[in-house]
Amino acid sequence: MTVKISHTQDVQNLFREACGLNNEQGSPRLKQLMLRIVGDAAKIIEDLQVSDDEFWQAVDYLNRLGARSEFGLLVPGLGLEHFLDLLQDAKDAEAGLSGGTPRTIEGPLYVAGAPLAEGEVRMDDGSEPDATVMFLAGVVRDTQGKPVAGAVVDLWHANTKGNYSYFDQSQSDYNLRRRIVTDAEGRYRARSIVPSGYGCDPQGPTQECLDLLGRHGQRPAHIHFFISAPGHRHLTTQINLAGDQYLWDDFAYATREGLVGDIQFVEDEAAARDRGIQGPRFAELTFDFQLQKAPQAKAERRNARPRALQQA
Amino acid sequence: MTVKISHTQDVQNLFREACGLNNEQGSPRLKQLMLRIVGDAAKIIEDLQVSDDEFWQAVDYLNRLGARSEFGLLVPGLGLEHFLDLLQDAKDAEAGLSGGTPRTIEGPLYVAGAPLAEGEVRMDDGSEPDATVMFLAGVVRDTQGKPVAGAVVDLWHANTKGNYSYFDQSQSDYNLRRRIVTDAEGRYRARSIVPSGYGCDPQGPTQECLDLLGRHGQRPAHIHFFISAPGHRHLTTQINLAGDQYLWDDFAYATREGLVGDIQFVEDEAAARDRGIQGPRFAELTFDFQLQKAPQAKAERRNARPRALQQA
Repeated sequence: MTVKISHTQDVQNLFREACGLNNEQGSPRLKQLMLRIVGDAAKIIEDLQVSDDEFWQAVDYLNRLGARSEFGLLVPGLGLEHFLDLLQDAKDAEAGLSGGTPRTIEGPLYVAGAPLAEGEVRMDDGSEPDATVMFLAGVVRDTQGKPVAGAVVDLWHANTKGNYSYFDQSQSDYNLRRRIVTDAEGRYRARSIVPSGYGCDPQGPTQECLDLLGRHGQRPAHIHFFISAPGHRHLTTQINLAGDQYLWDDFAYATREGLVGDIQFVEDEAAARDRGIQGPRFAELTFDFQLQKAPQAKAERRNARPRALQQA
Repeated sequence: MTVKISHTQDVQNLFREACGLNNEQGSPRLKQLMLRIVGDAAKIIEDLQVSDDEFWQAVDYLNRLGARSEFGLLVPGLGLEHFLDLLQDAKDAEAGLSGGTPRTIEGPLYVAGAPLAEGEVRMDDGSEPDATVMFLAGVVRDTQGKPVAGAVVDLWHANTKGNYSYFDQSQSDYNLRRRIVTDAEGRYRARSIVPSGYGCDPQGPTQECLDLLGRHGQRPAHIHFFISAPGHRHLTTQINLAGDQYLWDDFAYATREGLVGDIQFVEDEAAARDRGIQGPRFAELTFDFQLQKAPQAKAERRNARPRALQQA
């Protein structure tokens, strides 16, 4: 027999008191949220007969997850960040907002303040000479197809080991991170290196959870984008690279129709020389974006998620 | 209008996949728990219209809470650890288990492996000469009133600043932590110092949450106990000290009827001298415990919560 008490007046009173409903200070919004969260947690404990051992192992796990700053990694791994995208899509449909490049998850590895550049920019610091050089280019347009000049294309991606600068301290500051201002024709252009897919740290708490769920923690090779321009709606998205074995088996559920990048590998000594690189092999990736018109000024900006900022 | 999608087949499929329901590896129990947790989280987001800003601020908060190992502090602060006690009480009533000293919360500050002693033990290292000496004594009995010899009374408490050794690195190893074996009459005796109440770190993330809930983060002065003996049910409890302003206003909801310690402050130079201490003032606290008979062998042991262990 399952014993339940969370519905009793005594327990409801306890939770109302604990969540601050009996006082006038603090944040009414947080009180509302916490009362729901605490009540739901109690119901889960009762309904699934969570043992004390299980409960305290969970508390210990959450401490370890936070100690490694991996909440932002587990959240997409559990499908919740993709859920937020699907929910926003549904809200957009309800509001009659449509068109443009699909949004997809940001992930936890953005760093604010990358160098700002106009024209073609080189993103890699040259520290991986065996990497395949990647020429990345495209046009930012509005939903009528008109190029957007002066848009900021803020992009970041992993190196050939699947690691990101800043979080991987062995890389130079802002390696593989740039903000590119589109030219009069709405174009952005970058020379970088072909990234490898990202994988969760096999020793980390996110992978520990995924292991217990019978899942891998791998992502396809991809390039993250924030794109913003006055009058247009901020876009958070990614290009996931065609041909990657994890393209449609992404542990973070970021790959979406309309966001697959058709990367082309070229073996041509002369063409390589023309483009200023050594060796016969390089890659080209062209990807255009379309921005929705901003329904209000606030929509021009990305959300207020706390983000890393490189210390000078 | 509130847009909801978490009930749709697409989202249910996403969560089932993310929680490992589509594979045969891993832990069926964790999959069951995670599917419920993820689904409930999505419903909270929809029902309370949690914004992206709110969601990512929560993720950041959880990282900071874990980085400070404060999940075990917020859990009692939200009443959930007391809820676990109330739920166990209700399960005991259902199973016909009753009698004995009430249980109450463990809190996050136990350290395993404290020195083991027989007879009266001194718990403090003498580093707080201005503290009031406290003589603590009592008898461990069974529910028939028969003394339990050889019980282990594993107790820990704060210093006069409300801080605990190990977590407060300025204190000596195991200061104010001992395991005392009861004598043939079931007695335990300790000389220690009167503890002060505990308060959450004002700069820490638990207090940050409590502030937003309009609440303080203070506990009355108290002494924690694990009591165990072969054939008897393990008891996790506390004595909270009478006269403390927070006795019935404990942010962690640990104070319970039957667990208030009637500490007596004595001003008597001769009595003090007789007991081997300087100055006229000391304190006495007598508290007896009653242990239930263990319904099965497993009940003799405390739960498997991960706990700190002092490194030699």
